Amino acid sequence: MKKIYVLCALSAAALAFSQTKPLEKVEPAFWWKGMKNPDLQILVYGKDIANYQVELSDGIQIKDIQKVENPNYVFVTVNTNEINVPKFKISLKNGRKNVGSYTYELKTRNQGSADRESFSSKDVMYLIMPDRFANGDEKNDSMPNLTEKANRSLPNGRHGGDLRGIINHLDYLQDLGTTAVWLTPVNEDNEKVYSYHGYAQTDLYKIDGRYGTNEEYRELSRELKRRNMKLVMDYVTNHWGISHWMIKDLPSKDWIHWFNDGENGFKRSNYKITTQFDSNAAEADKKIALDGWFDTTMPDINQKNPLVLKYLTQNAIWWIEYAELGGFRVDTYPYNDKEAMAKWAKAITDEYPKFNIVGETWLSSPAYISAWQKDSKTGEAAHYNSNLPSVMDFILYGNIPAALTEKQGWDTGMMRLYDGFTSDFLYPDINNVLVFIENHDTARWNEIFNADPKAYKMALTILSTVRGIPQIYYGTEIGMRGDKNKGGDADIRRDFPGGWKSDPKNAFYASGQTPEQKEFHDFTRKLLNWRKNKAVIHTGKTKNYLPQDNTFVYFRYDGRESVMVVLNNNEKEQKLDLKRFAESLNGFSGGKDIISGNEISFQGNLIIPPKSSMIIELK
Amino acid sequence: MKKIYVLCALSAAALAFSQTKPLEKVEPAFWWKGMKNPDLQILVYGKDIANYQVELSDGIQIKDIQKVENPNYVFVTVNTNEINVPKFKISLKNGRKNVGSYTYELKTRNQGSADRESFSSKDVMYLIMPDRFANGDEKNDSMPNLTEKANRSLPNGRHGGDLRGIINHLDYLQDLGTTAVWLTPVNEDNEKVYSYHGYAQTDLYKIDGRYGTNEEYRELSRELKRRNMKLVMDYVTNHWGISHWMIKDLPSKDWIHWFNDGENGFKRSNYKITTQFDSNAAEADKKIALDGWFDTTMPDINQKNPLVLKYLTQNAIWWIEYAELGGFRVDTYPYNDKEAMAKWAKAITDEYPKFNIVGETWLSSPAYISAWQKDSKTGEAAHYNSNLPSVMDFILYGNIPAALTEKQGWDTGMMRLYDGFTSDFLYPDINNVLVFIENHDTARWNEIFNADPKAYKMALTILSTVRGIPQIYYGTEIGMRGDKNKGGDADIRRDFPGGWKSDPKNAFYASGQTPEQKEFHDFTRKLLNWRKNKAVIHTGKTKNYLPQDNTFVYFRYDGRESVMVVLNNNEKEQKLDLKRFAESLNGFSGGKDIISGNEISFQGNLIIPPKSSMIIELK
Repeated sequence: MKKIYVLCALSAAALAFSQTKPLEKVEPAFWWKGMKNPDLQILVYGKDIANYQVELSDGIQIKDIQKVENPNYVFVTVNTNEINVPKFKISLKNGRKNVGSYTYELKTRNQGSADRESFSSKDVMYLIMPDRFANGDEKNDSMPNLTEKANRSLPNGRHGGDLRGIINHLDYLQDLGTTAVWLTPVNEDNEKVYSYHGYAQTDLYKIDGRYGTNEEYRELSRELKRRNMKLVMDYVTNHWGISHWMIKDLPSKDWIHWFNDGENGFKRSNYKITTQFDSNAAEADKKIALDGWFDTTMPDINQKNPLVLKYLTQNAIWWIEYAELGGFRVDTYPYNDKEAMAKWAKAITDEYPKFNIVGETWLSSPAYISAWQKDSKTGEAAHYNSNLPSVMDFILYGNIPAALTEKQGWDTGMMRLYDGFTSDFLYPDINNVLVFIENHDTARWNEIFNADPKAYKMALTILSTVRGIPQIYYGTEIGMRGDKNKGGDADIRRDFPGGWKSDPKNAFYASGQTPEQKEFHDFTRKLLNWRKNKAVIHTGKTKNYLPQDNTFVYFRYDGRESVMVVLNNNEKEQKLDLKRFAESLNGFSGGKDIISGNEISFQGNLIIPPKSSMIIELK
Repeated sequence: MKKIYVLCALSAAALAFSQTKPLEKVEPAFWWKGMKNPDLQILVYGKDIANYQVELSDGIQIKDIQKVENPNYVFVTVNTNEINVPKFKISLKNGRKNVGSYTYELKTRNQGSADRESFSSKDVMYLIMPDRFANGDEKNDSMPNLTEKANRSLPNGRHGGDLRGIINHLDYLQDLGTTAVWLTPVNEDNEKVYSYHGYAQTDLYKIDGRYGTNEEYRELSRELKRRNMKLVMDYVTNHWGISHWMIKDLPSKDWIHWFNDGENGFKRSNYKITTQFDSNAAEADKKIALDGWFDTTMPDINQKNPLVLKYLTQNAIWWIEYAELGGFRVDTYPYNDKEAMAKWAKAITDEYPKFNIVGETWLSSPAYISAWQKDSKTGEAAHYNSNLPSVMDFILYGNIPAALTEKQGWDTGMMRLYDGFTSDFLYPDINNVLVFIENHDTARWNEIFNADPKAYKMALTILSTVRGIPQIYYGTEIGMRGDKNKGGDADIRRDFPGGWKSDPKNAFYASGQTPEQKEFHDFTRKLLNWRKNKAVIHTGKTKNYLPQDNTFVYFRYDGRESVMVVLNNNEKEQKLDLKRFAESLNGFSGGKDIISGNEISFQGNLIIPPKSSMIIELK
């Protein structure tokens, strides 16, 4: 009864499925030969197909077959190692009658696929909201089979940005010095409204038609690779859209979490994800935190169900292999079942040992965040190993703007920045953390700082020289603003000027940039391109000196190179007595400040102008 | 040369030692037979004694003899297992001539000495500044051999409180429900002024004459034990007083840290002790943090020197054995050399496996604090194991007053209190942390809260029911105030009213208490005595429920009992829907609130008055 209730509640649009054919869908649609894990679980979907027999051609054995509450699903597992044909047939038999069939292909993997490189601290990641970056193909702005149509006048509407638009501007991104591109989700999100953000996905195997096609997504990846850049997919394990075809016809009730005392199963998460590691947390609170929905249109997926977990795992691997991905960013990571996610991450990194996955670990302390990184001692304290290679440094994200605005005190101003780094020992791989000053969910940096180039330059100096993987949010490199407090999320996701043919100015080109935009852009370009080949920044050690007079000095160094970073957070110039830094300056007589281009001598004091930074390559 | 310089600099008063006899001092003055570690290092001190031969009677072998820069010292090591006499003679020979001798005694240990119990979460610790508590012996207020004389009119002077005063009030402390007493240091502190706090010790083997004698200290310990209470010594490893006899005649320069660029070797610590675990910290900063002096009169002791470490270890063990101690509180723990301190703590707990030592871990994050606890994963992340059993929960100390004063927000009000506990997983032994709202170095609770009994009762409810070892600061149980901001440390260390014969009122007795004092006192007495035999509080598990409407509910439970704690931080009464707590209330129909004495039924809502707490024993 309950099941029927939830199905009815969820499937206002489910009538379309009353026309479901005996073999409607097969997922994954194809697979590859030679994966480390030879087992492949094929979802077969169609009207009442659980009543039929599944047969495979070429004498291929079914290793396992699972039926669920809903007779429209069958899950068939085969061992791909035992299949010696590139294609075979899946047939549904009603007695002797063939009621449907599907030709399944096992493709050949690209050479080096398993060993692919992934994003790392060598990279700078550029975050794009595809609907808001550039419209490269106006024909797909609205699509007949997708509900929400383009309307650029609506802040929360679809604006028409697409994959072609991104492909068209890869030279811009490459020139800027970025080397990895993270797109917010581009799979189909066919919600009626507010679909542009993509986090309420309705088909996990299909690029949203308004962004382009699966082939265009792969083209983007290949075009990036040609430029020695990587494509990072935004993967969402925690929730799907309420209009997802499987949500509308659930395989079994327990594919999603739902609440008897909620409305149509909905109960909002309390977002208190510290319950994950807190052995004293009430189960009731923890359940709402993890199983509660992120929003009304986002049913919470139950990763504890082994079929669900396998579906998510195979889908992730399918995209890596198909679209030749260079990494994942995973949404709302701590809201998932943590044991299931540990298996998910392990399955992926077992297939691709160098593949990087960064989880959105939006938590308030380095102990909580580091606990989500693979092999962390903090995780071990909670009897947990996430297998997740990379996490997001939300502490640094909070500290940078605070440090730049506060006066220096015992733990404020530059001291806050310094103090933040004193917890680095908690991370087993401190180079594999994402460092950023903003993203598509936060206040825009240039709104906080009133588009002050001095503040931005200091922040970018920090991002470009500290440990970790810098992440830049589209538009900030031209000083873009947007006020989340006033305009909500839409305002921090404004269209990139020049991404649309009708735009009066095109800031993708110097000729279209205002002097202010150019100042931001050129500084960004200079720093990121400098960073590109600086192994000392990518993997060097760090030496932090206690800030004095609100001025912070740190060094990055390895056996070959040393770089001195100086941040003066005062409105006045500072004279630095260099004796304090003897252990790092020993053997060097000066250097070159790559920001000003000036040669610096270490005779006497070092003078650093107000609210500015230096990045000195030591000589 | 440098050595001579520092000796001259430090020893303005050292002329007294020109009269040093050939055998001036032997430390420890005696020892015990049958310690787990049989080696005993005897410091022998006298004029130029390094020029003499050391001989032991009864055929006892010297295992090792060490001479140092200063010829006035010899360190003689013997194996006590090989000594079969209760007393033996140490003789100094100049050729055949006996220039001095000392009869060394190896005493018999008390039965069960090694296995002694120590303070734990079963206890409530009462912190006393002995000079400010009660004057039980006016004859020792000033002593001829000790420089600073009593003057109760000076806020920073000596007021005459002593051990006899404490002994005289043990019935008061027992009746109050405390079971362990921590005295700030009572060893001799013979600085010229500002000596009452005792942290600039001048003799580590002698109780300051103005407090009493070694024998009286042991009497205090035994009187406590008779009441099933424990004496906790405040041990200082980090620094000694500048007038310490050994500082005035240093065995070798490297017994203390000193700075060429400081004044007479002095340089103030930068107090940035996060440098201990931060592998990126500049060595220069770390050196100042750890080797810098806590204050001008407190030369920083070099625990890296093995002779120093042995001296500190033996001295600590000597006091445990002699004064029959029930624990240590160790001052400024993270300012010491951490490897040396790990050895120190191990040596002590090897001798006394159940002995508890709590370090003053005044740090700003649970990750930093937990890293100092024995076997912590956070310590392991920094490749460190402290061997220190207990740490101080300075996070809770900060959270309680903030939580009670803030409005509830995402992370404020009761939510701050809750959030703090979500890091408990970082501590390997969360029951072995000291919990407190103040101490002799902080603002006084009742000053912050204007002696509001409601605030105090909520705070004491928290201290009495959360995991850990509650610590109460003398005088707070009668609502004592004192403003550190205005009156400095002296004002938070006012004399306990009634501790001096001339005091107009004696608040140690109900008859001398104002109604306000009585309200504080009686509530404290009620809660602490209730807690005394509550195993469910001492060692039970905890279940925390997310605060709602600024009301926090948690449970302590074990196989035998369950206690529900409710804290209403609103100015209005709250009605609690009990359904949320089903997993903890299952099987119980009500209970008794030990604060009000009321029987509570779990039919319907639970009503809790404004700014109040309940401690409900479930039935």
